[in-house]
Amino acid sequence: MEILSENTCFGGVQGVYKHSSDACLCDMTFAVYMPPQARAQKVPVLWFLSGLTCTHDNAMTKAGAQAWAAKYGVALVFPDTSPRGDDVANDEAYDLGQGAGFYVDAVQNPWAPHFNMWTYVTEELPKLVAAEFDIIEENQGITGHSMGGHGALTIAMSLPDRYKSVSAFAPIANPTASDWGRKQLGAYMGADEAAWAAHDASLLMADRGFHSPVLIDQGTADNFYDLLRPQALADAITQRKQAATFRMQSGYDHSYFFIQSFMQDHVKFHAELLK
Amino acid sequence: MEILSENTCFGGVQGVYKHSSDACLCDMTFAVYMPPQARAQKVPVLWFLSGLTCTHDNAMTKAGAQAWAAKYGVALVFPDTSPRGDDVANDEAYDLGQGAGFYVDAVQNPWAPHFNMWTYVTEELPKLVAAEFDIIEENQGITGHSMGGHGALTIAMSLPDRYKSVSAFAPIANPTASDWGRKQLGAYMGADEAAWAAHDASLLMADRGFHSPVLIDQGTADNFYDLLRPQALADAITQRKQAATFRMQSGYDHSYFFIQSFMQDHVKFHAELLK
Repeated sequence: MEILSENTCFGGVQGVYKHSSDACLCDMTFAVYMPPQARAQKVPVLWFLSGLTCTHDNAMTKAGAQAWAAKYGVALVFPDTSPRGDDVANDEAYDLGQGAGFYVDAVQNPWAPHFNMWTYVTEELPKLVAAEFDIIEENQGITGHSMGGHGALTIAMSLPDRYKSVSAFAPIANPTASDWGRKQLGAYMGADEAAWAAHDASLLMADRGFHSPVLIDQGTADNFYDLLRPQALADAITQRKQAATFRMQSGYDHSYFFIQSFMQDHVKFHAELLK
Repeated sequence: MEILSENTCFGGVQGVYKHSSDACLCDMTFAVYMPPQARAQKVPVLWFLSGLTCTHDNAMTKAGAQAWAAKYGVALVFPDTSPRGDDVANDEAYDLGQGAGFYVDAVQNPWAPHFNMWTYVTEELPKLVAAEFDIIEENQGITGHSMGGHGALTIAMSLPDRYKSVSAFAPIANPTASDWGRKQLGAYMGADEAAWAAHDASLLMADRGFHSPVLIDQGTADNFYDLLRPQALADAITQRKQAATFRMQSGYDHSYFFIQSFMQDHVKFHAELLK
């Protein structure tokens, strides 16, 4: 692992790191924020998965999460959203290929060799982070925005022993029924829609739910509301009687101005479940 | 004035606006954050002047100021750092020309027609902001980072009746004795160094000071420490017995990770003086 940068921030360290990924067969960059508490003891960790077009950098610089991670004593990990590089497949559309990994393992060409973001985020990167940083492996939570909210919810519900807490900001809630999902799941995973169900938060919620309360924030003025399909997730939560706080935030859109407005609530929510 | 974007943020509105500037003879873009309190009453305003290479966007997205502006009920204004455009003079160096206005009025060619950031920030934009937004003109404070800290300090000390409060993050504190200053003041204002003194925070501090306490934060690991010359400002403050809090922040560098770490302190400092 190579250190690309480290900056003091709220008494802790915001770092950016690069490593050679076996899952994605390319160099991958990620960011970790270690709060000041980590100098004296190991700390819980909150994963933040980002949305379409983002790298590790967007949330690191624009989500305002470090202030609250420092206050509540939680580490943050910001993975990239896809494999990267000139020899990695790509597409001209912003919502397929690089920057749009969708947190699945691809089985279709040209994506299959590199696009293994499920394995990367759930196996390879957690091992690296646990080896390199003073985090408590038993105390992990996961959140994310948009495509990253989709990733956070599907990963947490699929690996409930790993994650003690999950939340999401404006997640892609029902990708098997949305143009933000059908296109990508078809490209990466193939035409067999049965395989897609494991990557649909609303279907997973209906099928199994999560072992602790779930926090969802969704802006009412979200410019991608119809693609996100929050109603499908709300339906699944209420049908299942899943413990949850599902907040429709009046006037907020899909931007980081929305995310930062509620970041304190999310970090505090995770910190309390990760104690 | 044209609205380029408006996003709900911490219950208020983060907007980006464009107007035709008489001072700079070009279109200028700026950002304003109006806190939720502004829906019921006029609010004080805090100006944030940015550093070299920045536009209105950097601090708006990376300084984490909106959280505290909303908490303390203060509007924020983020001006651009220079005139812009294909027909505006420029230089290949990052520290001269577009993105490097230095908050002075140029009298030398090729800069003179457009590079009038002193007039823009102290006259034209304040009038526009007062006309278009529900701010209390009598309750204005000013802060900034690096070149913008230089701007904030020199403007506040030159117009003490206008500004009730001033602070700075890692300001260019003594430009008449630094390569961050001599080059630009010479280019914009000409070789007569006597004229430069009105744009040197340390000289102004020694000469006149400010009518209320001044807050300065400076990182000890600042990668531009030698160019900023904080010792000159500290000397002037202590020689003059100026009421001030000058904080050397251990381990912090020149980045927005530094700025955001202490933004709450600055917004609160201004809000209390602007009551």
